[in-house]
Amino acid sequence: MASPIYLGVIGVGGVGTAFLNQLARLPNAPQLVLLARSSQTLLSPSPAYKPSIPAGDWKTASETPSLTKSGALSVDEIASYLSSAPGRAILVDNTSDPALASSYPVFLRKGISVVTPNKKGFSSDLSLWKDIFGAAAEGKALVYHESTVGAGLPVISSLKDLVATGDQITRIEGVFSGTLSFLFNTFAPVSGGAGASAKWSEVVAQAKELGYTEPDPRDDLNGMDVARKLTILARIAGLDVQGPDSFPIESLIPNELASLPSTSDGITQFMTRLPEFDGQMSVIKDGAEKQGKVVRYVGSVDTAKKEVRVGLQYFDKDSAIAGLKGSDNIISFYTERYGPNPLIVQGAGAGGDVTAMGVTADLLKVLERLS
Amino acid sequence: MASPIYLGVIGVGGVGTAFLNQLARLPNAPQLVLLARSSQTLLSPSPAYKPSIPAGDWKTASETPSLTKSGALSVDEIASYLSSAPGRAILVDNTSDPALASSYPVFLRKGISVVTPNKKGFSSDLSLWKDIFGAAAEGKALVYHESTVGAGLPVISSLKDLVATGDQITRIEGVFSGTLSFLFNTFAPVSGGAGASAKWSEVVAQAKELGYTEPDPRDDLNGMDVARKLTILARIAGLDVQGPDSFPIESLIPNELASLPSTSDGITQFMTRLPEFDGQMSVIKDGAEKQGKVVRYVGSVDTAKKEVRVGLQYFDKDSAIAGLKGSDNIISFYTERYGPNPLIVQGAGAGGDVTAMGVTADLLKVLERLS
Repeated sequence: MASPIYLGVIGVGGVGTAFLNQLARLPNAPQLVLLARSSQTLLSPSPAYKPSIPAGDWKTASETPSLTKSGALSVDEIASYLSSAPGRAILVDNTSDPALASSYPVFLRKGISVVTPNKKGFSSDLSLWKDIFGAAAEGKALVYHESTVGAGLPVISSLKDLVATGDQITRIEGVFSGTLSFLFNTFAPVSGGAGASAKWSEVVAQAKELGYTEPDPRDDLNGMDVARKLTILARIAGLDVQGPDSFPIESLIPNELASLPSTSDGITQFMTRLPEFDGQMSVIKDGAEKQGKVVRYVGSVDTAKKEVRVGLQYFDKDSAIAGLKGSDNIISFYTERYGPNPLIVQGAGAGGDVTAMGVTADLLKVLERLS
Repeated sequence: MASPIYLGVIGVGGVGTAFLNQLARLPNAPQLVLLARSSQTLLSPSPAYKPSIPAGDWKTASETPSLTKSGALSVDEIASYLSSAPGRAILVDNTSDPALASSYPVFLRKGISVVTPNKKGFSSDLSLWKDIFGAAAEGKALVYHESTVGAGLPVISSLKDLVATGDQITRIEGVFSGTLSFLFNTFAPVSGGAGASAKWSEVVAQAKELGYTEPDPRDDLNGMDVARKLTILARIAGLDVQGPDSFPIESLIPNELASLPSTSDGITQFMTRLPEFDGQMSVIKDGAEKQGKVVRYVGSVDTAKKEVRVGLQYFDKDSAIAGLKGSDNIISFYTERYGPNPLIVQGAGAGGDVTAMGVTADLLKVLERLS
């Protein structure tokens, strides 16, 4: 029998809850001994590290006296608790917290593996990226982060396989945001359907109502989320990208509205004034149409030119990017071995269940390697 | 330091040679101690199991006196040699030999992991499939076979991740043969280009000249290769498929030509008489055209109906399958979590380099798990 493996999970939002539900149904799941949310932490009592927390039923379990309740713990406290467990430990970070992400090296140096959909650790300063992988090597711990790009789609794993087996990546290109995918598939569909005449501001308002955008749509429209994903892919492909602000990002937020506060009132003002700029977006759309093309918001990495770009681009109507449906992502890897026709991965790139699926699949891989 | 891992490789054809070249360039590659081709075997002398065979330079190395030369070894001899190595061993089968595939359980029970692009072991009788995975569990050995479907494309790994994390596969559909992809993309292109007026027999002859078909094109046209791939995917998705002949396969070989011998003369006769049947294929193509569709040769698995099918089907011209280019494969996974828009993987599904890439990536995963 392999020795038991101990699991600490942080975050019980959409992805966190979906992950806990998947965890609860795994055969031979690792023992959940720490579950932290904003201000509360649930722990299996040390030094026995049992009973473990029932993943699918933690809300009820948090009332039981057999588990330890605590307020928010510091990074050092969590790392020390997990590394003292009588077996290997894994931290699953289901938050999008940059502070927690910047402390991955603390966990890794103590031999605690990290599994996470949190982009922040891998897309901030290059020094943090290097520190994370250096610490993992030092602590003989593992880092898996499939869901940082394209949710559960096999994006990170495919790129890593290509690189590890000696292929040469020439170009990566795709639609990396479910929100921006939906906005442009609706605003500028290939076959001018009902949506073809919709104004940009109307499409943004619709997406916001459907819950497809962040509470403040400018958090999607500024392109930062896409830039973070490109930063991660470019680094895996071998480029030393300093950070997500070290290359051109075309923001879709009109300059005049960029300084509105991100308060509820500011968001309302933004949505109210957005129609003033519909003309600008129509010009772009019509420009594509005149060339028989459609406009899409894409990211790309060119490894030879060492160039990362995020912004609007025109595509042939029969291209895979133009034909994307709903809020799907598409990622094309052009490599020496694959030649002119890229390796393409496509599908839902956002949503609690599919993001959690990437986290759970990563967890299973870490378990296989630690067992 | 992890203990060294010992590698035996069988087969030096197109995939085998490409694999050895990739192996030679790996940092921290395992030690190649056995290299077998049809009638010759090259071995590191036992009991030291060194020097190892230089993977990139084995032809020259086979002349050196420091290595042991032998004729063809039996399965038991190879298994015994590898299992006596002073560390864990891995067998890479780069052949398409059904006899070798049927002996995987012998290797696995002795603790020798298996990595292979050889479909035969996983697509023959269900009893062999069960025996392989039972033996792997018994011997605590690993089995990886990504390149059995779609070459290096992340098909098997993606499907296994979906299943392992608890998603429900509802349907798998796609174009699984590079040859049949090329034939239909050329015979019935979406936009009636130059190829649109080509006759079926002309397209088959062209593919044969380009080396896209097997030496006997009937080995592609009979659909068996596709049926074997579907058998593998259906089994991973949870269906107990008895074998590749236990479900309907639509053969593209006219009945009248099926009994021609597979000799060189028989192949010539087949190619000479194929034009007699161009009319039949034109009727099918025109039938699709009348519905505004195109015809493609696809395989599908319906898990609810427990149905596997391989054959011709009509597709909307704006569908991803219809838009496929060259000899690319496309595989769509419809699942409960992914909803109406499937997870799609697309790209070259044949060729030495990309097939070998899947084998090398699998080998790296086995190494990670054994280290």
